[in-house]
Amino acid sequence: MSYRAPVNDIRFVLNELAGLSEVCALPGNEDTNPELVDAILEEAAKFAEGVLAPINRNGDLHGNTVDNGVVTTAPGFRDAYHQFRDAGWVGMRGPVEYGGQGMPALVTMAVEELWCAANLSFSLCPLLTLGATEALHHHASDELKSIYLPKMISGEWPGTMNLTEPQAGSDLAQVRSKAVPNPTGDGSYLISGQKIFITWGEHDMADNIVHLVLARLPDAPAGVKGISLFVVPKFLVNADGSLGARNDVRCVSLEHKLGIHGSPTCVMSYGDNGNAVGYLVGEANRGLSYMFTMMNHARLGVGVEGMAISERSYQQAVAYARDRVQSRALGSDDASSAAIIKHPDVRRMLMTMRSQIEAQRALTYLTGAALDKAARHPDAAEKQKAQALVNFLIPIVKGWNTEQANEITSLGVQIHGGMGFIEETGAAQHYRDARITSIYEGTTGIQALDLIGRKLASEKGTTAKVLLTEVAATVNKLKAAGDLAVIGDALEAAQEATIKTVDYLLATFDSNPRAAAVGSVPFLKQMGILLGGWQLGRAALIARQKLADGEGDAAFFESKISVARFFAAHQLPQVAALAQTIRFGAESALEIGEELL
Amino acid sequence: MSYRAPVNDIRFVLNELAGLSEVCALPGNEDTNPELVDAILEEAAKFAEGVLAPINRNGDLHGNTVDNGVVTTAPGFRDAYHQFRDAGWVGMRGPVEYGGQGMPALVTMAVEELWCAANLSFSLCPLLTLGATEALHHHASDELKSIYLPKMISGEWPGTMNLTEPQAGSDLAQVRSKAVPNPTGDGSYLISGQKIFITWGEHDMADNIVHLVLARLPDAPAGVKGISLFVVPKFLVNADGSLGARNDVRCVSLEHKLGIHGSPTCVMSYGDNGNAVGYLVGEANRGLSYMFTMMNHARLGVGVEGMAISERSYQQAVAYARDRVQSRALGSDDASSAAIIKHPDVRRMLMTMRSQIEAQRALTYLTGAALDKAARHPDAAEKQKAQALVNFLIPIVKGWNTEQANEITSLGVQIHGGMGFIEETGAAQHYRDARITSIYEGTTGIQALDLIGRKLASEKGTTAKVLLTEVAATVNKLKAAGDLAVIGDALEAAQEATIKTVDYLLATFDSNPRAAAVGSVPFLKQMGILLGGWQLGRAALIARQKLADGEGDAAFFESKISVARFFAAHQLPQVAALAQTIRFGAESALEIGEELL
Repeated sequence: MSYRAPVNDIRFVLNELAGLSEVCALPGNEDTNPELVDAILEEAAKFAEGVLAPINRNGDLHGNTVDNGVVTTAPGFRDAYHQFRDAGWVGMRGPVEYGGQGMPALVTMAVEELWCAANLSFSLCPLLTLGATEALHHHASDELKSIYLPKMISGEWPGTMNLTEPQAGSDLAQVRSKAVPNPTGDGSYLISGQKIFITWGEHDMADNIVHLVLARLPDAPAGVKGISLFVVPKFLVNADGSLGARNDVRCVSLEHKLGIHGSPTCVMSYGDNGNAVGYLVGEANRGLSYMFTMMNHARLGVGVEGMAISERSYQQAVAYARDRVQSRALGSDDASSAAIIKHPDVRRMLMTMRSQIEAQRALTYLTGAALDKAARHPDAAEKQKAQALVNFLIPIVKGWNTEQANEITSLGVQIHGGMGFIEETGAAQHYRDARITSIYEGTTGIQALDLIGRKLASEKGTTAKVLLTEVAATVNKLKAAGDLAVIGDALEAAQEATIKTVDYLLATFDSNPRAAAVGSVPFLKQMGILLGGWQLGRAALIARQKLADGEGDAAFFESKISVARFFAAHQLPQVAALAQTIRFGAESALEIGEELL
Repeated sequence: MSYRAPVNDIRFVLNELAGLSEVCALPGNEDTNPELVDAILEEAAKFAEGVLAPINRNGDLHGNTVDNGVVTTAPGFRDAYHQFRDAGWVGMRGPVEYGGQGMPALVTMAVEELWCAANLSFSLCPLLTLGATEALHHHASDELKSIYLPKMISGEWPGTMNLTEPQAGSDLAQVRSKAVPNPTGDGSYLISGQKIFITWGEHDMADNIVHLVLARLPDAPAGVKGISLFVVPKFLVNADGSLGARNDVRCVSLEHKLGIHGSPTCVMSYGDNGNAVGYLVGEANRGLSYMFTMMNHARLGVGVEGMAISERSYQQAVAYARDRVQSRALGSDDASSAAIIKHPDVRRMLMTMRSQIEAQRALTYLTGAALDKAARHPDAAEKQKAQALVNFLIPIVKGWNTEQANEITSLGVQIHGGMGFIEETGAAQHYRDARITSIYEGTTGIQALDLIGRKLASEKGTTAKVLLTEVAATVNKLKAAGDLAVIGDALEAAQEATIKTVDYLLATFDSNPRAAAVGSVPFLKQMGILLGGWQLGRAALIARQKLADGEGDAAFFESKISVARFFAAHQLPQVAALAQTIRFGAESALEIGEELL
């Protein structure tokens, strides 16, 4: 099944909802403008559709193989990566001084959506490289930066993130990998330990791989305050920048996974021969905070993944529903069998997918724009407000988009009926691939705890209340907008229910954190639905105005209104139900004896 | 991960909620009594835990292979089937006159739950055999019955159901397979055509396989009224009952599926050499109605599958959550890391799984008891009422249990964190296996249309209203029961919301069937949650009484109350949200231009 980049939908969100022109007007973004972004999108669409999407099933079918530490990627991946690298896509967001293009986050996000939808497994390699690049750019010495950043930004040396160990998953305090000063006295360190779940930890697509590794120095404090960050290249780098000796780091095995088979998930062993050379990034014992810098971006990236894989699944389901003829249309005089897209429940499923994807895209891109403002807004207060917004929205975007990706790709399977269960169809691959997104870079439970604790409670609900006020303003506009009033009513009910849960969580978090935590994931979903509905409400108002002005493609704008109305009737009512659960569901979750579970 | 048959929970549902002793008192069930059922359950538990569960992963890992029409099952399956057959499990429900034990549906259902949970792929072979047995028993001639039933009931010759063709999935009107009178004039027919998705269509576990096949006779009317049902054995049967020539039916290939790899899903070809001998079952052109007889039972069986695989996933998640130590417990003074079962969100997930499984088990077994009453109640009015209840509940049990199985097994993966995505863990197998249950034997959309049309509207809501009245009676008892009043309040709100949607659907179905159909799946879910909550409310009342009487295991009964309270706060509020969607969500689903999807 082919993939078509949804360029019109993306352009609408960029320009009308996320404020691309404002982002382009920020200091440092002068070289970017909506026309240039259009051209980039068109090129990226060609690449995603023509190069990445066609090898997506190869990745699933063939996966990666490891033989004595050498990982061979699926047919087509190596060549596609070389094309990707040579076209300059890796360095879009990289700093200009190291050869990057310094594009705004909002623009790179749009392009990332296409990579993720076309080939989720493939997209993880540049995504992790970007994360590693950012960590080095913010925290490494100029010497390390000058050695590694140009090669990483050009795509010649992809990067990886090595956090997890068997006993240290969500709980990085348990990291045991060690680093000791190199007896040569050259200022480097010798790293030892085993890391698991290392995405693209080893492969055949590049000459070198730059591993960022969390490890403990001798005498480091216990827990998270004793973790340092190291650069450990696969091949050491000579003074002239050429590749030197093979470093003592090795892929021991590959995991057999439910999905994303195209992406090698490695068990990595450091220092089996006592000679894994690494270089300290920044200061000792600050590794975790450095990782968190990039984890925020990575989490937003995973939110993009969830939305993108949902879009891919939706496109495949629509194509099948147009094609598959089965049973006569209900309430029709025509006795012959109809394409199943005519059946009301199939339409309900397609609209359930579509409306959530559009809501997610709008909210995700809004977060991307806030990221740009937080980085570059000239007004300190605006900058700070944007950063607070980013902090608050990231766990919602990450958690909600990915939880819903599981449901949306499941609907994608369901629409195919029995064929959905057959692997050749491809619908099941999206379902399997999506399943990791609500787990890695922090499970939904981790996101939700972050949301109610570090984000909501720690600032006493300031950003939540700003958002609720903005939602109320949109409610008022919708209620005054004729046939859009029905959206306004549904959004208003959801907004009022959310005020209650915000108050409840603020009142409860300090006094009874366990009770608040029971409501954390329901609250994350509630916020996702409310804010997604808010964005679709904004979209409907804009579409109504465009229609009144006779501007643009009328059918396109009519569809935006239908999507918003559908979401208002099919998703927004869940907000009040979740509010009930959050406010009254804690005790019964906690009271049962642990031994009785 | 080992499986432990939840015998205590099943016993509670059988005896306290589903009315096992009433079922045992029905004419013809005199040989069954709760003590005997206990003994059967203990034996079945041993078999499920000791024989079927241990080979479940074999099935997933090795699957089946086909070589020139010969299908080889996964290691251990053939031997397990022979043990299963020799222990007499196949014929539990079979008619006594053909060697069966004639056990009530309620009792066989409890045993089936264990087979499905232990090894879903394996369980499909006896499940389909039972369906085929029932179709023959009700509709075939005495001659056919005497030849086939004893061997099928003994398990020597398993049965299959051959309905689907590439162009005929949900829409059996499109069946094209043909049957012509055998030129030999012996009264048999020659069958030709290709059938797909034939579960256990060919394998090495038995000497013969009895295929039930839908095909069209010459000059049969078009559509569903021209389909006849045939028995087509793999090996012809000689007059003395011994096996004769190999029939002209062949497994052409096996499907590559998302899950249930242990069960061979075959493409079957009939009459490649013009000589597939079949025997007409009952009258010509009545095949579809015969199939529907058994499909009702099969659908209930798939509802059991959904609940059972959820239970398996739950058990595995609990075990992991007890074992996995990660992060300190929130709000605890103890700074050391805790088992994740102590984390509130993990408990929320476990209780979300557990409470739905208990609600489903109660509702499913209630349907099983109604099936027995519909078959054997001496009072004609009671019998008819029970049949109406069965008809109404089957699509709900099938649709709700299986839709939730997708969510519940997804939570099972989630609780494992990154390990959930690794196939060796086994959590992902349950997630993949479960995914077929909301598709086969009629998708959820098909169940939901059946529910609002043939079940709700065609009897003008009679059974729905009977159920709503019974729910109201339980509401009143709960509201008068002290600390259970909170459950009563939540159930009451759900009941009132459901009255509105029943009225809406009854008013809409004839005048605007497409609008009603948009709300059909939400209505099915609404009914599942309402009726599941009702059953848990009943369970809580009984548990409260047992506690007051000082009878039985207090901790067990306390846990029943916690489960009901949890469900009331976490599931029942969704009913009102679904009611909003049903009543106000039709137009926006249908208005968007098909070409804009």
